[in-house]
Amino acid sequence: MAGSNDNLPVNFGILLFPAFQALDAFGPLDALNILSMNFPMNLSIIGPTLDPISTKHSSNFGESIVPTHTISDPPQDLDVLLVPGGLGVRDFEGTTPIVDFIRTIYPSLAQKPNGYLITVCTGSWLAARAGVLDNKFATSNKSAWYKRKIVGPKVKWVSHARWVVDENIWTGSGVAAGIDLTLAFIEKVYGAETANDISRIMEYMPHKDANHDPFADLYKLERENC
Amino acid sequence: MAGSNDNLPVNFGILLFPAFQALDAFGPLDALNILSMNFPMNLSIIGPTLDPISTKHSSNFGESIVPTHTISDPPQDLDVLLVPGGLGVRDFEGTTPIVDFIRTIYPSLAQKPNGYLITVCTGSWLAARAGVLDNKFATSNKSAWYKRKIVGPKVKWVSHARWVVDENIWTGSGVAAGIDLTLAFIEKVYGAETANDISRIMEYMPHKDANHDPFADLYKLERENC
Repeated sequence: MAGSNDNLPVNFGILLFPAFQALDAFGPLDALNILSMNFPMNLSIIGPTLDPISTKHSSNFGESIVPTHTISDPPQDLDVLLVPGGLGVRDFEGTTPIVDFIRTIYPSLAQKPNGYLITVCTGSWLAARAGVLDNKFATSNKSAWYKRKIVGPKVKWVSHARWVVDENIWTGSGVAAGIDLTLAFIEKVYGAETANDISRIMEYMPHKDANHDPFADLYKLERENC
Repeated sequence: MAGSNDNLPVNFGILLFPAFQALDAFGPLDALNILSMNFPMNLSIIGPTLDPISTKHSSNFGESIVPTHTISDPPQDLDVLLVPGGLGVRDFEGTTPIVDFIRTIYPSLAQKPNGYLITVCTGSWLAARAGVLDNKFATSNKSAWYKRKIVGPKVKWVSHARWVVDENIWTGSGVAAGIDLTLAFIEKVYGAETANDISRIMEYMPHKDANHDPFADLYKLERENC
């Protein structure tokens, strides 16, 4: 299968920062780890510095991941940038360099046929603050939905969506929605058979309908698609 | 809520090894990370050495996690040990020290009212090889089900189970089943309200029935409960 499509992305990167949400990152990454056994792919883990990056926020319980690159010395020729969310996103000042990095790198992704920006949960807040979601449809997590217009006043936020695709930008709802988004992304780019094989290996029953969002209802959000 | 139950576990550990499955670890850990914001808990990450441990198996795509402890100098007074699976488990010789560690530490978990061993996916193979599942009901992932009797001839393997509880040992089916197991564990130990709050934050719709296993059917397993 590998190499049968010249437009397949090869160079993946994930952008991490202190107090990122573990599953925002490792749901998508687990699916991509499995995908990488059949397709030529590599992963850069991009952090503020080369120091390990912890999920810890307000407890002494967390995990630290080792970056391979920094935002000041990033990988060249990235095809896919994955941006998780997490409580760390709420530190607007602390995440300004992360937002600046997204703003700087996005044009190179946008001009590639195999270039994608993928956000999970409040990762879309970072993309929104970078301006790259302006005038685009996007979603975010539902528990902090009220903040969407503060971080992205020009974004066309979609309330009832497990994930949203607008051109080459894929934005997911909260945390676990990143797994559904990634399997849908794999289906779109690599085909349904590959996506189904990966769900089966993961023993995961994906939500297949991007517009079905039980959590928008659970949080009693008004329907919004602007 | 914190501290209202003297039998709540406090000292959690996860046992990692090269080529562990990312989501086996980070599905449960994401739920526990959220739990730790309301309960006094700490996490030790236990590896073969203090070197970062990579998920990489047969590709150049993976993530490395930083251990806090080693199997030769483990944390004291562990209450919960979490053991993921992954392709690394299939290296029987390489994982012998991991198996030996489980065999050595399990008696101290078994004698505590708040002591638990939790495995996800082929993590149960490691526990089975350690002998701690002998004469107990347990499950494992479904894609490699045929190997269960090689690793655990005396284990009472349950084919159609998303997860199985036998006394203080919780074993999960493949990969994503670890999220369902962990939410069920949190419901049992910390209460339904806490578990529901965490699912909602994770925007995850858990499988609530331990006996419903669509993947056992998908892999056409004969019903086994011995």
